[in-house]
Amino acid sequence: MNMKIPFGKIPYVYPIPITLLGANVNGKPNYATIGDLGLMGINPALVCVSSHRDHYTNVGILENGTFSLNFPTTAMLAASDYCGVVSGREADKGALFENFYGELGTAPMIRACPVSLECRVLQEFSVQHRQMFLAEVHCAYVDEACLVEKDGKKQIADLTRLDPILYALDNRYYAIGQPIGMGYSEAKKFIREKP
Amino acid sequence: MNMKIPFGKIPYVYPIPITLLGANVNGKPNYATIGDLGLMGINPALVCVSSHRDHYTNVGILENGTFSLNFPTTAMLAASDYCGVVSGREADKGALFENFYGELGTAPMIRACPVSLECRVLQEFSVQHRQMFLAEVHCAYVDEACLVEKDGKKQIADLTRLDPILYALDNRYYAIGQPIGMGYSEAKKFIREKP
Repeated sequence: MNMKIPFGKIPYVYPIPITLLGANVNGKPNYATIGDLGLMGINPALVCVSSHRDHYTNVGILENGTFSLNFPTTAMLAASDYCGVVSGREADKGALFENFYGELGTAPMIRACPVSLECRVLQEFSVQHRQMFLAEVHCAYVDEACLVEKDGKKQIADLTRLDPILYALDNRYYAIGQPIGMGYSEAKKFIREKP
Repeated sequence: MNMKIPFGKIPYVYPIPITLLGANVNGKPNYATIGDLGLMGINPALVCVSSHRDHYTNVGILENGTFSLNFPTTAMLAASDYCGVVSGREADKGALFENFYGELGTAPMIRACPVSLECRVLQEFSVQHRQMFLAEVHCAYVDEACLVEKDGKKQIADLTRLDPILYALDNRYYAIGQPIGMGYSEAKKFIREKP
């Protein structure tokens, strides 16, 4: 018997993907570490991010209507944790990384990250102090070293290569584990095994 | 030099947490496998989920203004994949699991999942065919076997115990890896190492 313990109003989503949220603030790149984000659909390509309205990064997102999501590797753990601790009002976090820009021109991205998503805000809405930005991914940028060829086409390597930083509300960071199956094919086993 | 390859409008958020989105539809529990969700803040406890407006589950979410997010273990991989392949219009997916309800009374949850979040919709909004639900977590339910005691207080075990299913847009499922650090303490190493 699985006894269930009520734990209160805790949004225990897991794992949480660690990203560096990028925006130009007063014309300079700034990055804040956040896990408050989610994929909201593939076509159209939607993401939603949430950030406290007092955060320095929000100023730039509102000013430009653009931002980026950069996925660091575990080798970037210390720098990623640092960008979640120190405000852009106090430190020049853009200077920590080699930056690049895409077509939108105002969403700074981090060259050292395997994947960066250049995003354009569609809607902004708030609940108390949380400011949420629903955005379209204008373009995903992938490190050439993280592409593999399959059936003559380039595709993004598996997550063990991308080596992301995961997080949970137990305040621990985690690495990714091994592949355990393929989407839409595990179901066949279930149908076969069902009594 | 890290060469960056533009990959188009692909929302390559990773890893994607696999969840079973639960709702009562016409008075019966139904579950749909989704990865289109995100934590939107801890206090208030916010999550956002997205689901195609034609999905059967959406009918129940709109009817009751409640839903649940259930986090399966890797042992539940085949059943979880199945719930993303077959519609509640064709199969009684509620019958696959032992269900329970919380205070809200209309958000069915899965007893076999280590963590379930009972949610109340605050706002609903759409982009094209995607319907998004911003919700407050009314209560998190945690399996007693997934609690550990620390400093005399019960807390949720680490992710290697919760054993979640992760996903990426390469259509692979993954297991969680090992803990690699603690939040807000890795930054100290960075400050020490900074030139």
